Amino acid sequence: MIADALLDSWLDEDVPYGDLTTQALGIGDRPGRIRFVARSQNVVCCVEEAERLLARLGTTPRRACASGDVVAAGALMLEAEGLAAALHRAWKTAQTLIEHASGIASAMRLIVSAARSVAPDIAVECTRKNLPGARRIAVRAVIAGGGSMHRLGLSESVLIFPQHIAFLGGLSALGDAIAGLKRRNPGQKIMAEGWSIADALALATAGVDVIQTDKFPPEMVRSLVEHTRHLTPAPAIVAAGGINETNAAAFAGTGCDALVTSAPYWARPVDVAVTIEPC
Amino acid sequence: MIADALLDSWLDEDVPYGDLTTQALGIGDRPGRIRFVARSQNVVCCVEEAERLLARLGTTPRRACASGDVVAAGALMLEAEGLAAALHRAWKTAQTLIEHASGIASAMRLIVSAARSVAPDIAVECTRKNLPGARRIAVRAVIAGGGSMHRLGLSESVLIFPQHIAFLGGLSALGDAIAGLKRRNPGQKIMAEGWSIADALALATAGVDVIQTDKFPPEMVRSLVEHTRHLTPAPAIVAAGGINETNAAAFAGTGCDALVTSAPYWARPVDVAVTIEPC
Amino acid sequence: MIADALLDSWLDEDVPYGDLTTQALGIGDRPGRIRFVARSQNVVCCVEEAERLLARLGTTPRRACASGDVVAAGALMLEAEGLAAALHRAWKTAQTLIEHASGIASAMRLIVSAARSVAPDIAVECTRKNLPGARRIAVRAVIAGGGSMHRLGLSESVLIFPQHIAFLGGLSALGDAIAGLKRRNPGQKIMAEGWSIADALALATAGVDVIQTDKFPPEMVRSLVEHTRHLTPAPAIVAAGGINETNAAAFAGTGCDALVTSAPYWARPVDVAVTIEPC
Amino acid sequence: MIADALLDSWLDEDVPYGDLTTQALGIGDRPGRIRFVARSQNVVCCVEEAERLLARLGTTPRRACASGDVVAAGALMLEAEGLAAALHRAWKTAQTLIEHASGIASAMRLIVSAARSVAPDIAVECTRKNLPGARRIAVRAVIAGGGSMHRLGLSESVLIFPQHIAFLGGLSALGDAIAGLKRRNPGQKIMAEGWSIADALALATAGVDVIQTDKFPPEMVRSLVEHTRHLTPAPAIVAAGGINETNAAAFAGTGCDALVTSAPYWARPVDVAVTIEPC
Amino acid sequence: MIADALLDSWLDEDVPYGDLTTQALGIGDRPGRIRFVARSQNVVCCVEEAERLLARLGTTPRRACASGDVVAAGALMLEAEGLAAALHRAWKTAQTLIEHASGIASAMRLIVSAARSVAPDIAVECTRKNLPGARRIAVRAVIAGGGSMHRLGLSESVLIFPQHIAFLGGLSALGDAIAGLKRRNPGQKIMAEGWSIADALALATAGVDVIQTDKFPPEMVRSLVEHTRHLTPAPAIVAAGGINETNAAAFAGTGCDALVTSAPYWARPVDVAVTIEPC
Amino acid sequence: MIADALLDSWLDEDVPYGDLTTQALGIGDRPGRIRFVARSQNVVCCVEEAERLLARLGTTPRRACASGDVVAAGALMLEAEGLAAALHRAWKTAQTLIEHASGIASAMRLIVSAARSVAPDIAVECTRKNLPGARRIAVRAVIAGGGSMHRLGLSESVLIFPQHIAFLGGLSALGDAIAGLKRRNPGQKIMAEGWSIADALALATAGVDVIQTDKFPPEMVRSLVEHTRHLTPAPAIVAAGGINETNAAAFAGTGCDALVTSAPYWARPVDVAVTIEPC
Repeated sequence: MIADALLDSWLDEDVPYGDLTTQALGIGDRPGRIRFVARSQNVVCCVEEAERLLARLGTTPRRACASGDVVAAGALMLEAEGLAAALHRAWKTAQTLIEHASGIASAMRLIVSAARSVAPDIAVECTRKNLPGARRIAVRAVIAGGGSMHRLGLSESVLIFPQHIAFLGGLSALGDAIAGLKRRNPGQKIMAEGWSIADALALATAGVDVIQTDKFPPEMVRSLVEHTRHLTPAPAIVAAGGINETNAAAFAGTGCDALVTSAPYWARPVDVAVTIEPC
Repeated sequence: MIADALLDSWLDEDVPYGDLTTQALGIGDRPGRIRFVARSQNVVCCVEEAERLLARLGTTPRRACASGDVVAAGALMLEAEGLAAALHRAWKTAQTLIEHASGIASAMRLIVSAARSVAPDIAVECTRKNLPGARRIAVRAVIAGGGSMHRLGLSESVLIFPQHIAFLGGLSALGDAIAGLKRRNPGQKIMAEGWSIADALALATAGVDVIQTDKFPPEMVRSLVEHTRHLTPAPAIVAAGGINETNAAAFAGTGCDALVTSAPYWARPVDVAVTIEPC
Repeated sequence: MIADALLDSWLDEDVPYGDLTTQALGIGDRPGRIRFVARSQNVVCCVEEAERLLARLGTTPRRACASGDVVAAGALMLEAEGLAAALHRAWKTAQTLIEHASGIASAMRLIVSAARSVAPDIAVECTRKNLPGARRIAVRAVIAGGGSMHRLGLSESVLIFPQHIAFLGGLSALGDAIAGLKRRNPGQKIMAEGWSIADALALATAGVDVIQTDKFPPEMVRSLVEHTRHLTPAPAIVAAGGINETNAAAFAGTGCDALVTSAPYWARPVDVAVTIEPC
Repeated sequence: MIADALLDSWLDEDVPYGDLTTQALGIGDRPGRIRFVARSQNVVCCVEEAERLLARLGTTPRRACASGDVVAAGALMLEAEGLAAALHRAWKTAQTLIEHASGIASAMRLIVSAARSVAPDIAVECTRKNLPGARRIAVRAVIAGGGSMHRLGLSESVLIFPQHIAFLGGLSALGDAIAGLKRRNPGQKIMAEGWSIADALALATAGVDVIQTDKFPPEMVRSLVEHTRHLTPAPAIVAAGGINETNAAAFAGTGCDALVTSAPYWARPVDVAVTIEPC
Repeated sequence: MIADALLDSWLDEDVPYGDLTTQALGIGDRPGRIRFVARSQNVVCCVEEAERLLARLGTTPRRACASGDVVAAGALMLEAEGLAAALHRAWKTAQTLIEHASGIASAMRLIVSAARSVAPDIAVECTRKNLPGARRIAVRAVIAGGGSMHRLGLSESVLIFPQHIAFLGGLSALGDAIAGLKRRNPGQKIMAEGWSIADALALATAGVDVIQTDKFPPEMVRSLVEHTRHLTPAPAIVAAGGINETNAAAFAGTGCDALVTSAPYWARPVDVAVTIEPC
Repeated sequence: MIADALLDSWLDEDVPYGDLTTQALGIGDRPGRIRFVARSQNVVCCVEEAERLLARLGTTPRRACASGDVVAAGALMLEAEGLAAALHRAWKTAQTLIEHASGIASAMRLIVSAARSVAPDIAVECTRKNLPGARRIAVRAVIAGGGSMHRLGLSESVLIFPQHIAFLGGLSALGDAIAGLKRRNPGQKIMAEGWSIADALALATAGVDVIQTDKFPPEMVRSLVEHTRHLTPAPAIVAAGGINETNAAAFAGTGCDALVTSAPYWARPVDVAVTIEPC
């Protein structure tokens, strides 16, 4: 899912013409070993892509863990043998890739764990609010962290925002449209975002399958769950807005069906120690 | 510096085939206005690229600030008029671009300000440890935040790490090499990273132009400054490793010449409110 | 949704170095007009992209219809004025783009119309079995034809094929998995393909939201509809496999919820006459 | 001729982030086998590229036929062993590639065979009117079908259309130009399209090497052949416009030198059955 | 023919993140004017692409000549007004593009002129031996210089080298194949390279349309012309190998039909003076 | 540093659809051997990339030398075994790549040798004035030739041209700025170009680290060296403009620290003989 050409573009971004220091010191042809070791416990991500980066530069990597694994502080994650020029060229790209992706995965895992400690079957999803251009890494990390993607993009699912409703002339017009939407899109759940309990209930009554809240506090989500639970069919309730590892359990305890978070995207990268030595 | 094709690839990542919701509701052809408003004070970045994104989709944007500006909470940053289909298509890509880039810029600015409150002329630099593939955004944001880039990559400058020295057979061998390095690279400062005061002094004695510390606490940086200040020429001392807005002033107060940080890359994105309305 | 760089790659594929004939005749700088006229009634598609192609080459196009329009035989679809070199360079790429895309759209429209003459609200969807690399044109044409896409790809929706079930150990194992699937994917309809009435009923009983048939004849689809209609909630029934304009009405008459077809992808391109004249 | 990056872009178009169904069912790591079997006799094309697709995803493919081969109904074309996640990811892209390309190749073969049953040495060529962006597949399929390409694009050969002549001021002006064209382009045959017998004869008299007819019926082509056969040197006569498998023999029987067709591009894809099973 | 994305990639190659000097001096926002002036008479090439580069960076260029023009020493070729940051960013890419391309064009023009001073209608062609990746610039420059391309690549024309014949089992086998080749490729001249007069005559007798010599001196080319002139049809004779401006007239005087040269590709770039000033 | 996708794009540029001649002769499947032999002594470059090109096409290459090696006339540089279709497809791209890159490397080596025969430790650098798009080849060849790159681009180093100073209001304003530049860019040497001895001395007095001359004759460079040698710290003096193999020793004899040349970019490609034979 991360193509060779994308891996190469990352290497090129960091080292377009080789490591000048290695060249200037004349050490490029000496054999060595690079080792990536976790400085703290973390959920691993993109170590497979780091392995491929190393292999593309002619080194012989050996991977000691997989995306989704939890590694302990001090654990070897990945190592490779090859020429010093290649090891230095791969170093930072491989390291920052693992660090950032594992940081997202680790943060996602914390939120998932917090939520499922309270509601073991709850869906825990991450938004598409990644840095533009980074969605392939983002999706990989969210899944490694045990979560799932809320949406991959706008083209694949129907999620009606108030910003859409404004063009229809309001919620009442939407009500008229829902039945048609459902008939014409039998493979899609019809989702909508509500900005108040009243809006959310109106969406539920109109037949929306999934109602997503925007920055409701937990008690308000719970109230919405209670107001909609008896409907047939009852809409799924999805809590979104401001959810993170500190409040995920509280949101999960409301009885809602899913949590949606963006918080992992600004998680601190995990710290990976890198050694390079002759061998 | 961010090419049209890169902008298009970001849009394509998020909305490869149009906004299905807009299509399903049949509202794509209705005229509207999108507005991006700061929810809190922040240092702006990439609002020009967001403007270009909007223009590429056929809307008519108007930009109210520039990268590097400080905007107040509630300030309009950017707006555009166009068809609902285009506004919805641009929405999230433009928003997350501004949010992430401005988040980095704002964090950078805090570190720069903290450092320069103590040492007004100190250089404050950001590493190249951005998410792979994101260097163009990273550089833009670092500069918008008032900082500069430590290195753009490995091909352009000479920075000798212990990981290089290992292939030479140790510091003593490096000493022999320094004079040659300097003669053969008259346009380059010769930089090296030291892992102890003793190492750093050895590097200084060997004639290295710039000595970079790795995770020295401030007092240890200060000690190194004091030990090298009297040399002729005195090497520049650059503090790196674990520097952030909370300790930047302490590091700046050591008398060193530059701080190098990676912290802005995991700054929380700023919060930008987006409204879309018919017009 | 079709980026400038993609348009340019199409032009480059056909005319990497200019039209040698125009160059050899020395007529490149003479002003002229190109006109694209429908030879028969058809549903238009990609005339906007053809317009952009012409504009990218420096000509001044004027578009006389839009994707989704029905144009009569003899109707002008698009014209442009510019230098002969540019007009000849754009000619075949613009023409074949309109011809192929309008061919798909026209075929889709026939199937949609046939189906909806019997079942006015039925969903009529096209598969993702386009020529690899052509999905952006395919989606555009399906929508222009009044249909919708069954799936945009594999990453966005859950459709369980027997080829998946084989790895689970059979339908009974699937039954156990469905409830979990639904809880963990609240934004997704769970869809599955059945290869017999019995399989389909087992899927329905297991709680699948949407059951897709594979090459059932209409009477068999009708039977499945009758067997599942009374379930609460009743699964949507989607007929797929061998559906085209000649049998779409028969399938639509079965009471199923949606038809899925691949037939438009091998529709004959519409015939567009192109004239180029000095002006 | 179909680069790795193009293969990867096809996979990415269909499965940007993995098969969600496989992921949701938790079966991705189970070993399995995929088999592609012809449902009917056909001329194979792009099975090598399908093999490469499978190999790029880490499976171990085994190819049982080659582009240009005729396979019987029921024949195994290609199989691979690998993890379920990879097999499902490759499935549809590999299948539709083989189906579309083999469909074109099979249609081309029918036209070639029909023509050569009458005129064993006649050239049978396909136009460049493929779907924009698909020329590499198109050329591959035309050759697999036993035909050749009429032109690969506009930059490489001289084919004078009436749309060129219009800028010269008519056929008489062309006549003056032909001798110069021939001297300045000694490696090129000078080709021209005629819209009537009279035009074609004028082109022949002017010294054109190859005269291409546009939608002449066979008897008209025959008449042109008879009128030009005695010229020294006699121009080659190429029949184009509306040629397909039903009339290719009739056209070939006119004595012309080549047929040019676009019909294979809208041939129905061949039907390839795909099974995926644990192993 | 040189797409926007290619222009952008050239700018990116030279200035990925802006001109650091301009940034460090804080002068980027000051308005200025850039002027490109010929230091010597030359045949211009790629000044249009340089103009587009300047426009893409937001400056307002004004072009004073066109590809193919001869400009005098001291003549203004191109100028633009814009911000200093944009002018400095465009400077070297625009300058080296014009210098290299005009260097090739000027060298080509000298060879064409030398040849045509003796043989006014002779074709003068350039090989495809450009630096890999530079063919679009190469073709543009060859045409600007008044020449034409010998071949654009291997896929479009039939030129039989001894390296092909080796696989056939020698010239006699080729002789058997020629008639078939000609029938199956009626739009192609059959070309072949001869390494001796005897070989060349054998090729002529076999019916080859165009015979290309490899490093024959002029008198040997003349001899070949004399030996083949009386054949019906007489093959075109093309002299290739070691041809440049100093010997082009001698080769042209042999009576051959075309010259093929690679010499322009290593022509010295023309010298263009660039000034940048505030305005 | 030269990615697979770039190699593929070169092959595609030359042979987008296979070698038509090989196809027309029906020899593509015959096994053969290609050999690249130096016609004259030269410094080799890009033979590794040629090897990769050959391997990507399925042949089995064997490389007999490495970039930077000097090979004698008649020496085998590279050979490969594979099918005739692949050998013909790779031929010219591999050959012209080696010829052009080795031409640059050989010219660079001559200049380096000339300079170091007089000043053994002098830096000899090549400019960034390569053909746009060719920097990766250029850098590779400069290094193979024993030189180094003056600058890789504008974003990485500070080199103040008079074209920058014009926006500051003259040299005096620059003087005020230098101290700040140095403090804010501790990792950079501050370089500046002088157009006269007086300017250069003013730059030196202002504290510029490296002074680059523009087209000074050797005696003027020597004078500048003498005028600056006693300064503390003394600026490095870099001679640029018009330097080539004939005058490099004279410039090196001036006592300056570095030479900067563009001359290798228009060096004549080396001549590599290519044989292809059945085997």
